[in-house]
Amino acid sequence: MSRLTHYLPIIGWLKTYSRQDFSEDLFAGVITAILLVPQGIAYAILAGLPPELGLYASILPPILYALFGTSRALSVGPVSIAAIMIASALSAPEISALGNPVQSTVILSAEIGLIMLLMALLKMGGLVSFISHPVLTGFTSGASLLIIASQLPQLAGLKTPTCGLNVACYGTYIQGFNAATLGIALAALGVLIVFGKPLITLLKKLGLSVSIVTAISKCAPLLTVVVGTLAVSYFSLQSQQHVAVVGQVPSGFPRLNLDFMRSQQWRLLLPSAAFIALIAYVESVAIAKVTANLRGEKITPNQELIALGAANLAAALSGGMPVAGGFSRTMVNFAAGAKTQMAMLIAAGLLSVAVIFFTPWFANIPKAVLAAIILMAILPLLRLKNILHTWRYDRGDGLAELMTLLGVLVFGIEEGIVLGIILTIASHLRKTGQPHIAVVGRIPDTEQFRNIKRHHVETWPHLLFIRIDESIMFSNIDYIENYLTTELAQQPETKHVVLIFTSVSDIDASALEALEHINHALQKAGKTLNIAEAKGPVMDKLKKTDFIEQLKPGKVFFRNVDAIKALAE
Amino acid sequence: MSRLTHYLPIIGWLKTYSRQDFSEDLFAGVITAILLVPQGIAYAILAGLPPELGLYASILPPILYALFGTSRALSVGPVSIAAIMIASALSAPEISALGNPVQSTVILSAEIGLIMLLMALLKMGGLVSFISHPVLTGFTSGASLLIIASQLPQLAGLKTPTCGLNVACYGTYIQGFNAATLGIALAALGVLIVFGKPLITLLKKLGLSVSIVTAISKCAPLLTVVVGTLAVSYFSLQSQQHVAVVGQVPSGFPRLNLDFMRSQQWRLLLPSAAFIALIAYVESVAIAKVTANLRGEKITPNQELIALGAANLAAALSGGMPVAGGFSRTMVNFAAGAKTQMAMLIAAGLLSVAVIFFTPWFANIPKAVLAAIILMAILPLLRLKNILHTWRYDRGDGLAELMTLLGVLVFGIEEGIVLGIILTIASHLRKTGQPHIAVVGRIPDTEQFRNIKRHHVETWPHLLFIRIDESIMFSNIDYIENYLTTELAQQPETKHVVLIFTSVSDIDASALEALEHINHALQKAGKTLNIAEAKGPVMDKLKKTDFIEQLKPGKVFFRNVDAIKALAE
Repeated sequence: MSRLTHYLPIIGWLKTYSRQDFSEDLFAGVITAILLVPQGIAYAILAGLPPELGLYASILPPILYALFGTSRALSVGPVSIAAIMIASALSAPEISALGNPVQSTVILSAEIGLIMLLMALLKMGGLVSFISHPVLTGFTSGASLLIIASQLPQLAGLKTPTCGLNVACYGTYIQGFNAATLGIALAALGVLIVFGKPLITLLKKLGLSVSIVTAISKCAPLLTVVVGTLAVSYFSLQSQQHVAVVGQVPSGFPRLNLDFMRSQQWRLLLPSAAFIALIAYVESVAIAKVTANLRGEKITPNQELIALGAANLAAALSGGMPVAGGFSRTMVNFAAGAKTQMAMLIAAGLLSVAVIFFTPWFANIPKAVLAAIILMAILPLLRLKNILHTWRYDRGDGLAELMTLLGVLVFGIEEGIVLGIILTIASHLRKTGQPHIAVVGRIPDTEQFRNIKRHHVETWPHLLFIRIDESIMFSNIDYIENYLTTELAQQPETKHVVLIFTSVSDIDASALEALEHINHALQKAGKTLNIAEAKGPVMDKLKKTDFIEQLKPGKVFFRNVDAIKALAE
Repeated sequence: MSRLTHYLPIIGWLKTYSRQDFSEDLFAGVITAILLVPQGIAYAILAGLPPELGLYASILPPILYALFGTSRALSVGPVSIAAIMIASALSAPEISALGNPVQSTVILSAEIGLIMLLMALLKMGGLVSFISHPVLTGFTSGASLLIIASQLPQLAGLKTPTCGLNVACYGTYIQGFNAATLGIALAALGVLIVFGKPLITLLKKLGLSVSIVTAISKCAPLLTVVVGTLAVSYFSLQSQQHVAVVGQVPSGFPRLNLDFMRSQQWRLLLPSAAFIALIAYVESVAIAKVTANLRGEKITPNQELIALGAANLAAALSGGMPVAGGFSRTMVNFAAGAKTQMAMLIAAGLLSVAVIFFTPWFANIPKAVLAAIILMAILPLLRLKNILHTWRYDRGDGLAELMTLLGVLVFGIEEGIVLGIILTIASHLRKTGQPHIAVVGRIPDTEQFRNIKRHHVETWPHLLFIRIDESIMFSNIDYIENYLTTELAQQPETKHVVLIFTSVSDIDASALEALEHINHALQKAGKTLNIAEAKGPVMDKLKKTDFIEQLKPGKVFFRNVDAIKALAE
């Protein structure tokens, strides 16, 4: 039973589900659905797809996630970062030559689902920890900038510019703006901004409860869509002013189909699918953790892979675009009081109703309003200042964050991630390659051995205590050897070298070989090499070799003070 | 002056050079020259080149190394591993299509020299430490196997087989052997084997001095060459028995020329040059260190890059193949008593004499004898058992060594190195990703805090001491967080968590962020997070942030025992 609950977390919370929980979930579900309709359409258009692919992705996938997912607040559905990655994958020459973006997208959903389930099977949830926070932040900021750049022209009814670095060209380009579109866009932006902090502050001052304030504030996107659509319809703005609109959306439930099974583009799309799967998983778990931490709940990464994998397979089956946990939507769902995934089940139900009854109304939604909604949703993900913050704390991480962002902008989305991962690993190797090493002495009357440069310590003339602050391995053994040689040259009266291993968690094969050489050289010079305070796992490993034998008359000491007793006289 | 000595180490030893030194160097120089002639010709042929390219590489390059190098015994010249790498570079379709292997080789020499000098300029000597010992050993063994496979057919006068996996084909192939060639080869192998250990043991028993014994033993290659050549000439074995011989070698000094400057194949050869430079440098320094350690001398890696770079440029100028420090030759030079690089200057002088006066004699050297010499020289480099040895000590390193060897054999020489480097880094990241973590307690009446599972220690009910045996970073923060959560679930009465940072040498940006979350979650649960025994550099970094402020009422303790005093009551 506990095993079943492990794989179907929904059983866990349904057992104790109360009427009170339902009323809160109902409220949150309605609010999230109100946000989900314009977001679903907008992100599909952002990915260069017909709007229904975003709507379909908002029905079956969240239901699957609700069954399998461990996060209670995560809102799974179309997300902006994945949308721009899909756009990038579809624009690759080999894929766009096929001329069937809808089929390619459904294949992407299927591949992402399968990759996630495979990763779950191989227990590879931990592997994604190799995307460090700075790389993820740099990537998100870079992708956000790409999205902003793609949406800004839409606000004025312009196409994507093709001017490159020709400044004069932009003058001509910008004159092609559509006044009616720009007006609608600015009005929408105005409403979205006013319904944000200003309105929330005002309503709170009027004494309204937090959940009511949230609800009113989060209706802004729907309000702009409704008003924008009514304006387009009433004034015939599409035909008379050439305002771009969403266009016909097919009505009714998505047809479940397995057409994509027969396709040939599987291999071509696989690398993109792998990158989207990676980012979708990492972003979703990061968001899920934020809300789980706030309520003291627990996210199980491997189970999340299963849930997100199932959700993406469901997206493929129902002809939807790939899905992930959305940042803004999850925060809205959480703030509106969602207690469990029941909220998302309700939202999915409402989306079904919308797809059956309201699609004729979607045709006249102005694209400029959707662009404004995307822009406002993406701004919190743009964290450029964070680069400076990271740089101040850790140069290597700061550089990785900056280069990931620049990599995304200059070379492409996938290239940016790869560059960031490589730089993170390089920065880590550079750190381990030049470890901190300290000559230490004893703080009088204690067992504390500290850096002679930082503390007032006792030392002994024939005794050199050296603490190596890193595991000893291929990348730093030359550095450590040079340090030792230099230190011994400065203190020629040394008879016993004691390496303090408190910070040494591993000695690899290269390091063992080098330590044997160092010991041999010291013995030829009439000195001894000793080891102190080695940890259990390191001693276990050394005991498998004859190194401790080779050290003699050098010894292994349990404590530094034992070394003093034995060697200082 | 000391700066001049730094860049021209020859000045250093010339100042104290004695008549006694010279007599020892003279002896060693003659012995090494006797070895150098057949090796130079053999390695050129191994690389698929005319024999003179190996001889030219034995004159000017060692002179340049003698000026700049920090090793006193290293014998720089043609080497077997570089030869097989050159053969591999020349056999690439784009290069072999050009049909000018001699020019391509001279360009390789020039590029290798320039790459080494560039690395010296950028102080990149340390970067090569990323080739771990297991990868280097696996690579050397793999390359040795390739060399053996290329030389075995030569012993019987056979061409390289083209049978693939067709076993029947080998039956026919092997029948094409040349009886006279096989006879010469077996005789040569016999002499080389007998002049090795058996003769040395015998002569030592007869009471001869070590240097005389070494000299006699090391004449074996020259002896086989002389006898083999005389046999070919006297019995006209080439014309009558089709025994393959070296053929005409141009007489006289190599012409210094800059023809290669005008060539187009620079770009094509660059990747191979980079790999050869890397391996040539790493192998040379490894060999130089072995002899330097035996005599208490010191090798300066960056100066070695300058010396080897200059030597390779000299090889290019004088039309020779790329050079490096040779393992067997250096050991012979050292064992014959070489005190300084004067020995190599003498050997270079003797080689000049050979090139001017003796080249007509080289034409009839049977290739089978050279193959026998190569085989005997390569055998000590084949260390297959070492893989098992490494595996027993460290699985990750053992796997890297095995895969490097297999990579060299299956995918190619350069691919093998890359595979090995990637596996070493992956194994290292895997280790750091799942660090050893121990719940610790105090060993009564000491300041030692040790694993509660390994030692008999005191603990306190509300106090949880956890020692993390690794720097905290992107790759392990999730693992550490899970460990903490599990441990706290098992000990719900815990009020204070103390993280012992003795082994934590760095906290990267991802880890800092995660620690902030952990602290926040603990505070919400009414617990505190504390830190003890953090090292100076870690504290310096944390003090740049407000993390210590956030910890409150959690504290930072200088010693674990301070934490007990403050928290155990």
